Amino acid sequence: MHGRSDRESNRLFDQASGLGFLLHEGTRYPAGSTVLEAGCGVGAQTLLLARNSPYAHFVSVDISDESLARAGEQVSVEGLPNVTFCRADICKLPFRHGTFDHVFVCFTLEHLPDPLHALGDLKNVLRPGGTLTVIEGDHGSAVFYPDTMAAHQVIDCLVFLQQQAGGNALIGRELGHLMADAGFVDAGISLLPIYASPAIPGSSEAVKRIFIAMIEGVREAAVGGGLLDPEDWERGIRDLYRTTEEGGMFCYTFFKAIGKKMGAVP
Amino acid sequence: MHGRSDRESNRLFDQASGLGFLLHEGTRYPAGSTVLEAGCGVGAQTLLLARNSPYAHFVSVDISDESLARAGEQVSVEGLPNVTFCRADICKLPFRHGTFDHVFVCFTLEHLPDPLHALGDLKNVLRPGGTLTVIEGDHGSAVFYPDTMAAHQVIDCLVFLQQQAGGNALIGRELGHLMADAGFVDAGISLLPIYASPAIPGSSEAVKRIFIAMIEGVREAAVGGGLLDPEDWERGIRDLYRTTEEGGMFCYTFFKAIGKKMGAVP
Repeated sequence: MHGRSDRESNRLFDQASGLGFLLHEGTRYPAGSTVLEAGCGVGAQTLLLARNSPYAHFVSVDISDESLARAGEQVSVEGLPNVTFCRADICKLPFRHGTFDHVFVCFTLEHLPDPLHALGDLKNVLRPGGTLTVIEGDHGSAVFYPDTMAAHQVIDCLVFLQQQAGGNALIGRELGHLMADAGFVDAGISLLPIYASPAIPGSSEAVKRIFIAMIEGVREAAVGGGLLDPEDWERGIRDLYRTTEEGGMFCYTFFKAIGKKMGAVP
Repeated sequence: MHGRSDRESNRLFDQASGLGFLLHEGTRYPAGSTVLEAGCGVGAQTLLLARNSPYAHFVSVDISDESLARAGEQVSVEGLPNVTFCRADICKLPFRHGTFDHVFVCFTLEHLPDPLHALGDLKNVLRPGGTLTVIEGDHGSAVFYPDTMAAHQVIDCLVFLQQQAGGNALIGRELGHLMADAGFVDAGISLLPIYASPAIPGSSEAVKRIFIAMIEGVREAAVGGGLLDPEDWERGIRDLYRTTEEGGMFCYTFFKAIGKKMGAVP
């Protein structure tokens, strides 16, 4: 799971502010609607949701008390009044069927062993006619220059470790079939690609803080676990940094799915 | 080089019509301007250029008489009056410095051993203040589901064979540094991602006709050349087709660069 260490929390906040415009574009909820944020972590997306839809009310759940505490602090600092935090396992939600007008899930399904089951549960707590919005990355979408084997190897370590932990770092590409399999209708997929290069102010910095920091976060597990020897690890990380320097580039695609629960608005 | 066999020509026409909106969005040239299309092939993009900018004049060059003949036919059939075809090697252009107001290059640099040199030549024939637009794919951007090793292997065969022929099927990611190295200013890169699935009418058909057909086009070279044995080849192709069926998806990113030649408009 992301969001544990202090460095991780910083990464997630950077991610939300740097990518907020991209990820939340078009995500605005009507006044008076009640929206479940399933898996709020340390509140990176919560802030943006609450700011962007000030007259909607958000119920943001997470399984970690520690994450919720940090999320709560952030929301308090900004004085946002429209968020209620609730400790809950998103696979065992403590809400009645049809409780929410809308559901928002971001960077959460990637960590679940059974994302299809989770989508079914989320559908249950959604009212008929309500929408589910899911945003996920896909590390297989990373395209960079210079392109080296070593750089791909360190990324592959994260993909493998996340899979070992029951997650899926390549889930972005699966949102289409997951939404359909879970019975959502009118599901649409948007591609949210980012392109970073030193010629675009701040973009390469964001790649370092967000993507490369995330890869570096699994160094111990990867090298200690014997997936890669230390020299290959360092080479791969060095090569990733090289993509943020003069003449380099890094691009990545997020997937955003929006689907509806069948049925008339009550 | 693309565009040789009849099947290849069909693929290229399909590509232009299916992707025309995406690739040519925002590409409109002012009335009275003279635009070089460098590497027009069988005219797939020529048609769209001439239609979209009816009061600009295009000079479309290619090294192949056969391709030019086909391109000419297409333009005649549509009765487009604003295209002049000219047989020329884009690495040895028969035009004086500063001849063109704008230059357009699409799916051409990927075939050249020295794309940087070609960009320099194109800059020479461009007037100061004129723009160069380059569109290229990048096979490393393909993300699909189901994702299999065998499918990646057949794509890798094409990438390898194109490299052996002096080209680069991963050139999209390099447009940024190539434009800068060639001395173009104010260069911007746009990502043009496509997402195909059976839920989006026509999209999976386009993947078959455009991408998979292109891969299948190198079967002989790949299998005959010993890159892959016939069973692995068939498995990879079958797996690619599987991405176009129920529950599957295929996405791909084109890169579009627009840069300017330094200097005031004369």
